[in-house]
Amino acid sequence: MKDILEEISKRSRLKATEGTIASYIPELAKADPEAFGLAVTECDGSQYLSGNWDHPFTLQSISKIVTLALALEERGPERVFSSVGTSPTADPFNSIMRLEMDAPHRPNNPLINSGAIVVVSILPEEGRERKIDAIMDLCRKLMANDSIDIDDRVYRSEKNTSDRNRSLAYFLRSVGSLNGDIEDILDVYFRQCSIKTCAKDLSIMGATFACDGLNPISGKQIISPSTARTVRAIMTTCGMYDGSGEFAVKVGIPAKSGVGGGILGTVPGRMGIGVVSPPLDEKGNSVAGLAAMKEISEKLRCRVL
Amino acid sequence: MKDILEEISKRSRLKATEGTIASYIPELAKADPEAFGLAVTECDGSQYLSGNWDHPFTLQSISKIVTLALALEERGPERVFSSVGTSPTADPFNSIMRLEMDAPHRPNNPLINSGAIVVVSILPEEGRERKIDAIMDLCRKLMANDSIDIDDRVYRSEKNTSDRNRSLAYFLRSVGSLNGDIEDILDVYFRQCSIKTCAKDLSIMGATFACDGLNPISGKQIISPSTARTVRAIMTTCGMYDGSGEFAVKVGIPAKSGVGGGILGTVPGRMGIGVVSPPLDEKGNSVAGLAAMKEISEKLRCRVL
Amino acid sequence: MKDILEEISKRSRLKATEGTIASYIPELAKADPEAFGLAVTECDGSQYLSGNWDHPFTLQSISKIVTLALALEERGPERVFSSVGTSPTADPFNSIMRLEMDAPHRPNNPLINSGAIVVVSILPEEGRERKIDAIMDLCRKLMANDSIDIDDRVYRSEKNTSDRNRSLAYFLRSVGSLNGDIEDILDVYFRQCSIKTCAKDLSIMGATFACDGLNPISGKQIISPSTARTVRAIMTTCGMYDGSGEFAVKVGIPAKSGVGGGILGTVPGRMGIGVVSPPLDEKGNSVAGLAAMKEISEKLRCRVL
Amino acid sequence: MKDILEEISKRSRLKATEGTIASYIPELAKADPEAFGLAVTECDGSQYLSGNWDHPFTLQSISKIVTLALALEERGPERVFSSVGTSPTADPFNSIMRLEMDAPHRPNNPLINSGAIVVVSILPEEGRERKIDAIMDLCRKLMANDSIDIDDRVYRSEKNTSDRNRSLAYFLRSVGSLNGDIEDILDVYFRQCSIKTCAKDLSIMGATFACDGLNPISGKQIISPSTARTVRAIMTTCGMYDGSGEFAVKVGIPAKSGVGGGILGTVPGRMGIGVVSPPLDEKGNSVAGLAAMKEISEKLRCRVL
Repeated sequence: MKDILEEISKRSRLKATEGTIASYIPELAKADPEAFGLAVTECDGSQYLSGNWDHPFTLQSISKIVTLALALEERGPERVFSSVGTSPTADPFNSIMRLEMDAPHRPNNPLINSGAIVVVSILPEEGRERKIDAIMDLCRKLMANDSIDIDDRVYRSEKNTSDRNRSLAYFLRSVGSLNGDIEDILDVYFRQCSIKTCAKDLSIMGATFACDGLNPISGKQIISPSTARTVRAIMTTCGMYDGSGEFAVKVGIPAKSGVGGGILGTVPGRMGIGVVSPPLDEKGNSVAGLAAMKEISEKLRCRVL
Repeated sequence: MKDILEEISKRSRLKATEGTIASYIPELAKADPEAFGLAVTECDGSQYLSGNWDHPFTLQSISKIVTLALALEERGPERVFSSVGTSPTADPFNSIMRLEMDAPHRPNNPLINSGAIVVVSILPEEGRERKIDAIMDLCRKLMANDSIDIDDRVYRSEKNTSDRNRSLAYFLRSVGSLNGDIEDILDVYFRQCSIKTCAKDLSIMGATFACDGLNPISGKQIISPSTARTVRAIMTTCGMYDGSGEFAVKVGIPAKSGVGGGILGTVPGRMGIGVVSPPLDEKGNSVAGLAAMKEISEKLRCRVL
Repeated sequence: MKDILEEISKRSRLKATEGTIASYIPELAKADPEAFGLAVTECDGSQYLSGNWDHPFTLQSISKIVTLALALEERGPERVFSSVGTSPTADPFNSIMRLEMDAPHRPNNPLINSGAIVVVSILPEEGRERKIDAIMDLCRKLMANDSIDIDDRVYRSEKNTSDRNRSLAYFLRSVGSLNGDIEDILDVYFRQCSIKTCAKDLSIMGATFACDGLNPISGKQIISPSTARTVRAIMTTCGMYDGSGEFAVKVGIPAKSGVGGGILGTVPGRMGIGVVSPPLDEKGNSVAGLAAMKEISEKLRCRVL
Repeated sequence: MKDILEEISKRSRLKATEGTIASYIPELAKADPEAFGLAVTECDGSQYLSGNWDHPFTLQSISKIVTLALALEERGPERVFSSVGTSPTADPFNSIMRLEMDAPHRPNNPLINSGAIVVVSILPEEGRERKIDAIMDLCRKLMANDSIDIDDRVYRSEKNTSDRNRSLAYFLRSVGSLNGDIEDILDVYFRQCSIKTCAKDLSIMGATFACDGLNPISGKQIISPSTARTVRAIMTTCGMYDGSGEFAVKVGIPAKSGVGGGILGTVPGRMGIGVVSPPLDEKGNSVAGLAAMKEISEKLRCRVL
């Protein structure tokens, strides 16, 4: 296993040169294009670490599954899915158009930006501090890592380059799909995107989803099996931006990517996978990360679909 | 097993009263709303049949996976996916808008009507007769049933109520996304939709996809493992019209539905499922069929996601 | 007056080199790029002819105002505007998207292709021959020219390159916005587009609209004042494809263009203008024709807006 | 003349019961549904006043033509129309979709909200105070009324119910179509919408546009003839929201409406018309105002199209 992963690391990291580092948020542009980390955590607790498995990067969109899990736990699926849909979409992650066209203007799913912002808004916690505390707390438990924190420079950089997300939030409120203080809600959103993590953390969180909510490292049941399954299903259809369909064909594993270069994979009943390499393809997915996921799926025969 | 399926049948068929039979094609409107059939074929060849498992109905959109499999086998994935995408879409199955907006005007995926029409057009067989013969031939092999045939009345009914599909085809050709004689291509499409089948047939086809292309009834390798996996992945993200995301959450099994009331499910490495009940929900999926799939996923613990 | 028009001709025709001849219909591609004709017919019957004022070309979209006038006369505005709107649109002339998005799927206005096709369909005449006869008859009267005829080669060329229009027509029928035999309706549409005319004819038709329906050459009242005004108003907001807004600003005269290179202008109470020069800008309007219209508007102080 | 206008007033004001007062801005909802004022100012300076011609209301969207005129005067048409288009649109006044679909994401025209916001942003004045001062100054000159002021309660009400406009502004900035401080720009926009006026003021402003920029009351040339014509042309194609096409057909006069219930009409070379009646139709135009404009067009034979 260790050897297979080492080889996959070696081959995949070469692909990074084909990608481009996210630059729309200035602080993200500073990421190291050569960093490559890979980690696998199995449901029995064994771990395999390779390359820069402890290289720090920010969750970005991967944080959406944490907040979704939190909302499902605290509000229940009926409430959550009355505010956001479960439909995959071929629109870009920050599209407004779809919101405008379709009454009742509900975001298509919780993993596009508009959906993730709505999910933040329906968390029961009052105020920005309590909301982000609850998200951080769940994140630490899913990763069995109490030291998880926010990258303050990325957070401030996000906040200063957020016109599109502000536009989405105001639009959502104008059509009655979002309630509450927009600056509060967006602040939580920018902070959750700026949570610092590493490939190892991702693999543990992936394993927790794979093990129906039981964290195989801490041995604790973090979320209900039903929440874990729901999140896995939504990752499968919507987790890789508009590359989700192609990823299902080529890799066939529930996964979620972020523009920080991370990809979290989850193989139900078997393992979690964490991989990071900042250069992205035009859809916003880590190029070397995609290559690694594809090889893992084939070599470890852990394709689900 | 048999008992579990009997109970599921009993409970699920009651749901049929909540649905409505497809009426946009006159001949479909004549379907028996009370018919309910369920069949499971396992990868070891065992079969469980329940209710009206031999009740005849037409494949409709389920035929799209047969033609897709054929095109993948004959043309290879690269050629197929240069003509149609692999992206799930939140648009209705017969939408033109998306085609117009997105250059290069390629249909989002092969399971919406525009995509399925393009897949028919790229089959290497010349002329409508050869194309439909090749599709029928593959269909018979996937179902291990040489007597599969076309329901001529449904076919003619489809042909007479086909304005939207004609519009799609002419649009596709006008933007260079489809070549060939449109009447030929649509004729093949209408005929493949009109292939007569039953729940048992569906379960065998589902099992063939589940067993990576090996038909467990005939014992023959019908399609390559790679084609089987590709079709399964696309079913997962796009198989249930715009109910695909919700189906992934609630059922978590690759599946394809048709407005004839059938649903084919495929559990990789384990089994194929066929269910039929004509009354549909507003998305075009069999209401009782959905209920049965959900129960099977839970009771047989065969959820994939 | 004559001198002014001669000078305008001289300057405007030089602009033709900046345009491109329509090529999507093969027969149109054969047009002479150097032909330039200009004609003005005043409401008192005086006429000024310049350049290739008798150079033959086909009406193309200019025919839409003839059919609209006919439908208004025979069916009345209430009936016509229950089937097509009066809203200008920023979409291309052959867009389907707008039809799909907006219930009740009524074409935005009678001067885009979908609207013009619907107008043909609601003419009271039965069958393609009677419909086109009625249109030709009105056209001859509006132009005071009994020898107006169809360019058969252009007609057949249109018919063979009509995928987009077929797509529009089938779409319209699929949503209930068009009734009747599609081949019949499109045949009439292709024939009306292929009516042969010249700058002089256009100027007389323009003058008839300018004189509230009275043809100043034949001295006959051809259409009602109300129909003339309605057509003029719709030309103002929708007559120059998606260049209508810019034309209103720069020229300020009700006008209708066609991809054959013609532009018809109408100055209420004063005159009709006909100009032809085949090379088009990217919106489908004659480049030299636009230049001539702008100069006429300024030099003859006949701006309306 | 006076008698004709009195009769038109009498008949038109009865129509008000068919409309509904704008309620999306709370302060607007307090308007008097029975107020009806009508005024005509001719190019020779004669004035006819009828009903509640001095009833105060706010300009709302009518203010867009003031700011457009200011930008045209100060920046020139080339600069203005590089930032906003001149195309009429069938989309609602506050649509975002169109912005997203069409590269280069330029608002369709300066009379929809997104366009008007961009026009404010390109005014050369620095800061919100100087910008609104310049607008107020031009407004006073166009109306020959030095006492024109802002309705502070409406302004604050607009500011508190501005989610959609904020969404538009952030979107525009996110795609590079708007630069500057969004709160500053929106503040100016909300204030210009809240300028208090009356039917008499509107008629004088309308007359100034009709007289090519010469105010017939003050006798001063306020704006250039070219600016006056450009604004008139854009009013013709885009002035009445998505009722512009129908208004062109039924009334045939360049005009601009506001949700405060006002309509400004301008008959080139002849007169300006001001009418107010707060109840609106579903497109946002004053019902009684539309009726009055239609009658004036017919009775005074001042139709332009």
